[in-house]
Amino acid sequence: MAGSKASTPLLKDELDIVIPTIRNLDFLEMWRPFFQPYHLIIVQDGDPSKTIRVPDGFDYELYNRNDINKILGPKASCISFKDSACRCFGYMVSKKKYIFTIDDDCFVAKDPSGQDINALEQHIKNLLSPSSPFFFNTLYDPYREGADFVRGYPFSLREGVSTAVSHGLWLNIPDYDAPTQLVKPRERNTRYVDAVMTIPKGTLFPMCGMNLAFNRELIGAAMYFGLMGDGQPIGRYDDMWAGWCIKVICDHLGLGVKTGLPYIWHSKASNPFVNLKKEYKGIYWQEELIPFFQSIVLPKDCTTVQKCYIEISKQVKAKLGKVDDYFNKLADAMVTWIDAWDELNPSGASGRVANGPSK
Amino acid sequence: MAGSKASTPLLKDELDIVIPTIRNLDFLEMWRPFFQPYHLIIVQDGDPSKTIRVPDGFDYELYNRNDINKILGPKASCISFKDSACRCFGYMVSKKKYIFTIDDDCFVAKDPSGQDINALEQHIKNLLSPSSPFFFNTLYDPYREGADFVRGYPFSLREGVSTAVSHGLWLNIPDYDAPTQLVKPRERNTRYVDAVMTIPKGTLFPMCGMNLAFNRELIGAAMYFGLMGDGQPIGRYDDMWAGWCIKVICDHLGLGVKTGLPYIWHSKASNPFVNLKKEYKGIYWQEELIPFFQSIVLPKDCTTVQKCYIEISKQVKAKLGKVDDYFNKLADAMVTWIDAWDELNPSGASGRVANGPSK
Repeated sequence: MAGSKASTPLLKDELDIVIPTIRNLDFLEMWRPFFQPYHLIIVQDGDPSKTIRVPDGFDYELYNRNDINKILGPKASCISFKDSACRCFGYMVSKKKYIFTIDDDCFVAKDPSGQDINALEQHIKNLLSPSSPFFFNTLYDPYREGADFVRGYPFSLREGVSTAVSHGLWLNIPDYDAPTQLVKPRERNTRYVDAVMTIPKGTLFPMCGMNLAFNRELIGAAMYFGLMGDGQPIGRYDDMWAGWCIKVICDHLGLGVKTGLPYIWHSKASNPFVNLKKEYKGIYWQEELIPFFQSIVLPKDCTTVQKCYIEISKQVKAKLGKVDDYFNKLADAMVTWIDAWDELNPSGASGRVANGPSK
Repeated sequence: MAGSKASTPLLKDELDIVIPTIRNLDFLEMWRPFFQPYHLIIVQDGDPSKTIRVPDGFDYELYNRNDINKILGPKASCISFKDSACRCFGYMVSKKKYIFTIDDDCFVAKDPSGQDINALEQHIKNLLSPSSPFFFNTLYDPYREGADFVRGYPFSLREGVSTAVSHGLWLNIPDYDAPTQLVKPRERNTRYVDAVMTIPKGTLFPMCGMNLAFNRELIGAAMYFGLMGDGQPIGRYDDMWAGWCIKVICDHLGLGVKTGLPYIWHSKASNPFVNLKKEYKGIYWQEELIPFFQSIVLPKDCTTVQKCYIEISKQVKAKLGKVDDYFNKLADAMVTWIDAWDELNPSGASGRVANGPSK
């Protein structure tokens, strides 16, 4: 798993790396041994007149706000501006089956033996092996080498389901909210937990976009990072929003979501005062959002990710519109997102049925 | 956590260690530094004329089949004979608030730094800190030192709920069923996963009785290990049965179940051929048992563990009796168990309300 030389990179022509950024991408130097074989999609967050420098030798395409506006026209309104939530535009323009997305303040972590962790390789392993959402396996990922299903695990459930999402973690700076950052400014995550696990069906989780991979064909159309940043009342809930939506849809369609390995090294904490300003409405709203997402039931005729997502947008409008008008705007943007997705991904628009993962 | 000298043992007068056995308890020598301050309840499995030797210096009481018959009279029929499921008699006669139970082929494991793991101390830490069953925390147990709730975890859920059960794991011989033992005779668990986590609400898990602790006041009356062994059609499903029952009840009463640390060293695999004979009906029945337990809804007036347990026994009879007549017998034994529990634990019989953990 860790420290592999990746001499024949897995899924080389089937995976794009999506990076949102406002600065020169010097952080890629450290990732060169692992990322250089892959294609990068860089989404420039903020001022489009600024030039972003990408280290030599990387194969990439870069989109700034002008490009997004040109490609999507009026539908560009669904893509956040001046917020890393804009990364989801990269998911939309990719033509690959898999996406890995990473923040530009994330570096290569080391495993306990001191070896560099090839985060991308671990994500790919997670995505290519099944998930087990219907029953908990106490020895963690049963598909991993040296592990299996334990006594008492129903045999009918051991085939598992296709994995749609692989959520990786962070050493050093943990992904805390502003209040926790303020209370525990010096806390660092030093615990390397050598596990990957499926998040059980019916359980929501806080999905962080810092170190995340997914199967674009299976769940991409629901990986919308919402309306954040410039002109919006909240920030730092882009990945959370996407995480709640994708989990409800994966549960409905019988797809798996894994969390755990790989770790990346998160280099610096963002400013907790700025974060508090971005988050405070989210912290409050979230108390209504979680029960809302926990109670969503999708009708049986929602057989594609797009249909599920449109249905969720309707329920957002119907039930969260009264929490704040922002959710009416967000519900509209969710519909715009699907329109734009289907326009750029015409084959997907016909509606893939979820139960047949294309291997 | 690991390797502590336990100079002032936690919960010394509030915890019993329950050990089912058919042989001399030489394995206790290795546990002496950790177990000697505590009281042991030894339940002798099988021939009562055999003398079980307990190493000097341990404080213990020992019950053989004759004792069980004398104490419970006709109600002794609910306690399995010639099967380690008889251990639950020890839960019943204990007068302590907490129970730790361990098999006599389990030894002290070492953590990755080479230190002896004080399994009991870790279980106590797990039981004395809250659980978080309503939402998944990606950095595992948020109550552990160096960890917390991550961004996006609802603040209203951070207080957590009382922990009723702490399920520990095993290095060396994993707890596999007979078919997996047969297919992978050489597989050993060498992966030390440094994590404790709450099993989410609504998710069932395979509870192993080898290395298990629980709050007897909160959940003891449901820790019945069923009818196994002599005269019964199955074995090796005693702990599984208890695990499904306690999880449904904990979910209903708002109590937490944790799994992960501590590890013990499981020394030798049981005979897979013997195990297959014990298990094969269970492997088959289990396919109906899991959907049954997943679909159980307990009425609101089930406000105590006893009431919940009696309700489950009724549903077992109504819905599983047709799978095999064994489940009618088991349902009756569940009622007998509660009768016996309440007889030996008269204060508990009045019905503790679950929402007020007595600290």
